Amino acid sequence: MARIVMKFGGTSMAGIERIRSVAARVKREWEAGNQVAVVVSAMAGETDRLVGFCREASSLYDPKEYDVVVSAGEQITSGLLAIALQAIGVPARSWLGWQLPVQTSDAFAKARIEDIGTDALLASMNAGEVAVVPGFQGVHKGRITTLGRGGSDTSAVALAAAVKADRCDIYTDVDGVYTTDPRIVPRARKLKRVTYEEMLELASVGAKVLQTRSVGLAMKEGVRVQVLSSFTGDDAPMADTLPGTMIVGEEEIQDVERQLITGIAHDKNEAKITLTAVPDKPGAVASIFTPLADASINVDMIIQNIAHQSAGSASATDVTFTVPAADLARSIEILNQARGAIGFSEISHDTRVAKVSVVGVGMRSHAGVAATMFQTLGARGINIQAITTSEIKVSVLIEEDYTELAVRVLHTAYGLDADEVAA
Amino acid sequence: MARIVMKFGGTSMAGIERIRSVAARVKREWEAGNQVAVVVSAMAGETDRLVGFCREASSLYDPKEYDVVVSAGEQITSGLLAIALQAIGVPARSWLGWQLPVQTSDAFAKARIEDIGTDALLASMNAGEVAVVPGFQGVHKGRITTLGRGGSDTSAVALAAAVKADRCDIYTDVDGVYTTDPRIVPRARKLKRVTYEEMLELASVGAKVLQTRSVGLAMKEGVRVQVLSSFTGDDAPMADTLPGTMIVGEEEIQDVERQLITGIAHDKNEAKITLTAVPDKPGAVASIFTPLADASINVDMIIQNIAHQSAGSASATDVTFTVPAADLARSIEILNQARGAIGFSEISHDTRVAKVSVVGVGMRSHAGVAATMFQTLGARGINIQAITTSEIKVSVLIEEDYTELAVRVLHTAYGLDADEVAA
Repeated sequence: MARIVMKFGGTSMAGIERIRSVAARVKREWEAGNQVAVVVSAMAGETDRLVGFCREASSLYDPKEYDVVVSAGEQITSGLLAIALQAIGVPARSWLGWQLPVQTSDAFAKARIEDIGTDALLASMNAGEVAVVPGFQGVHKGRITTLGRGGSDTSAVALAAAVKADRCDIYTDVDGVYTTDPRIVPRARKLKRVTYEEMLELASVGAKVLQTRSVGLAMKEGVRVQVLSSFTGDDAPMADTLPGTMIVGEEEIQDVERQLITGIAHDKNEAKITLTAVPDKPGAVASIFTPLADASINVDMIIQNIAHQSAGSASATDVTFTVPAADLARSIEILNQARGAIGFSEISHDTRVAKVSVVGVGMRSHAGVAATMFQTLGARGINIQAITTSEIKVSVLIEEDYTELAVRVLHTAYGLDADEVAA
Repeated sequence: MARIVMKFGGTSMAGIERIRSVAARVKREWEAGNQVAVVVSAMAGETDRLVGFCREASSLYDPKEYDVVVSAGEQITSGLLAIALQAIGVPARSWLGWQLPVQTSDAFAKARIEDIGTDALLASMNAGEVAVVPGFQGVHKGRITTLGRGGSDTSAVALAAAVKADRCDIYTDVDGVYTTDPRIVPRARKLKRVTYEEMLELASVGAKVLQTRSVGLAMKEGVRVQVLSSFTGDDAPMADTLPGTMIVGEEEIQDVERQLITGIAHDKNEAKITLTAVPDKPGAVASIFTPLADASINVDMIIQNIAHQSAGSASATDVTFTVPAADLARSIEILNQARGAIGFSEISHDTRVAKVSVVGVGMRSHAGVAATMFQTLGARGINIQAITTSEIKVSVLIEEDYTELAVRVLHTAYGLDADEVAA
């Protein structure tokens, strides 16, 4: 017997027919003697519909009330899956965020899970009941919270950690993690295993398979996460033998499997902001990024140019950085409010940028990864606007129009192309 | 300053534009210095959509999970109305059923309100906040319950009683209570006042303006209920001067206003069941109606024919009664299961029946109301299949095809026709 958390996304929950397929798959794990908790997303399109209502009601909606509205989508699917499971003879019940409870921080609309109550849940699972848990939602001091878009993956991993699950199976509309987006590079290869660190970089730069936070949480809690296709038929093998991608600790990956570079990711949802003539004095940078951090806006790449000094004036510098495109308008508003404190001259922005990254734990022991990247892009005339690096990643910001070209040439340059085109 | 509960139905909440109109109307009451709590229904069509999902998932859905699913509709609109109120400068917050809490019985999908917690709610209202409360939902031992279809009226009246509101204004898609359905009788008149007892009879026989239970609760708790149109423009007079219908205690109605008959109602949602050859012995009737009551099926009209006895066998009788058409299939199933205990010979049913009722507190002191009814219907050749009476009502069961004719001729016979055709 194993204890398994299964997570199904919005496409898998889009309509009763699909919910029935999910129920059938859950039943097979349950019939095999496993304890099963299922985390569900809202029906595809439903969260967008609900978010649209909130935005239409007020562009400056109260996140507390927004959470009341948008959490309804997962509430609906969790009740429906419980009904569908019961209909095929599987005892099941739903556990809403405030019922478990899934206690979160007070950051409404982008809350963080702090604790999950498992006493009642485990008693129910030990009694043979399948637990159905709506993803994306929690509770803070008696009011509903949500975790931000894509939060259901995080809900699943957090639940897996809380109930000490043997495995957290994430069913998605892709059948695993690839070396890059197969729509851009048909010769992309599916990875059998990938480390948490690599997945974290791949997810955070837009691989879109798993939400970043969920991977970070899985790494911290040591949850074995498997990415699987939800579109395999009822006669598919059991999940413990399915050919998905397993996300594991580095120690689980054999040396022979290890590649220099694991994958190439891209992200078009960045926006670039440049502040000109920021006074070059202590505290200047803090005065820019503190108000953005206070507003929970994630600043990514930062470039501070060399200070330039004109006759008779204090030295000043230009500061360029990127934020999620969705936060651009709010960022500019915040920066303009802080203009007096920061003391910049002008603010400009550009959304027609993309971040392209090469990722791999193997680069730790190999020099020259960045040099290969710059040479490869340079040879194609692609201008690099900003660079960031980590131990296992090199990212560059380029003009958006060159994204696909950059991904293709890098995929080839690092020897990632498969012999055959991916299905 | 008054404390007012306002209730808006699904048509008023159907889309953000209409929710904005509701917010504007709430704002006017709030700006006049009133304390306001608003009870909302789901968007028109939403509850049907959610109920449809449950039925599609399983014809024998678990009412606990059904409640999780269908309560989401009101959760959504309560969050949206709070946002829309805030957008026009009115402090507001939503209070879900489990948050107040609205404690109910354990009859999931048709629960009864037992108690409403008002401490936090009143503190918020005293601080000037408008409270937005989803109708139809409550909580029992930590799990979501719903009150059954149309339960939002009951939520509003129960809340008005709990916070000792001066008035409970129910905004509907009609502008008041009429002597009968104006679509059938264009000369129907709008009633300025109607007693709880009359409204109870009018509602329970299908006047459809207010849910029966809400009227009974208003009577028990002495809540002054006003029925108003939600389609009057923003320049409409304030609700305390609006020409709706006020539902009040009998003592508030002046003798001069008092009519012999207040209105004629009809109800096509009944089904007739006949059990033949039920043994005529003590306990026989109980063995029929106890299992139906246990299943919360409301039996309405009951006729027990005179016992007939054939040579050599025990005496037996036929029993005919009506149930809501929606409960017919379940009723027959239950009766067939109890066949051994009841001992009937055959079961037959007919859904092509309608109940037509004349209602008025004035009939208490006037004989001959029933006689007029029977003569009027008889003169048109309308056969009466069953009769029930109360202090202030006479109801007959007739063939459904004659419903409109019966209502029209009775409306004229009791002198209810207005001089002019209703707008």
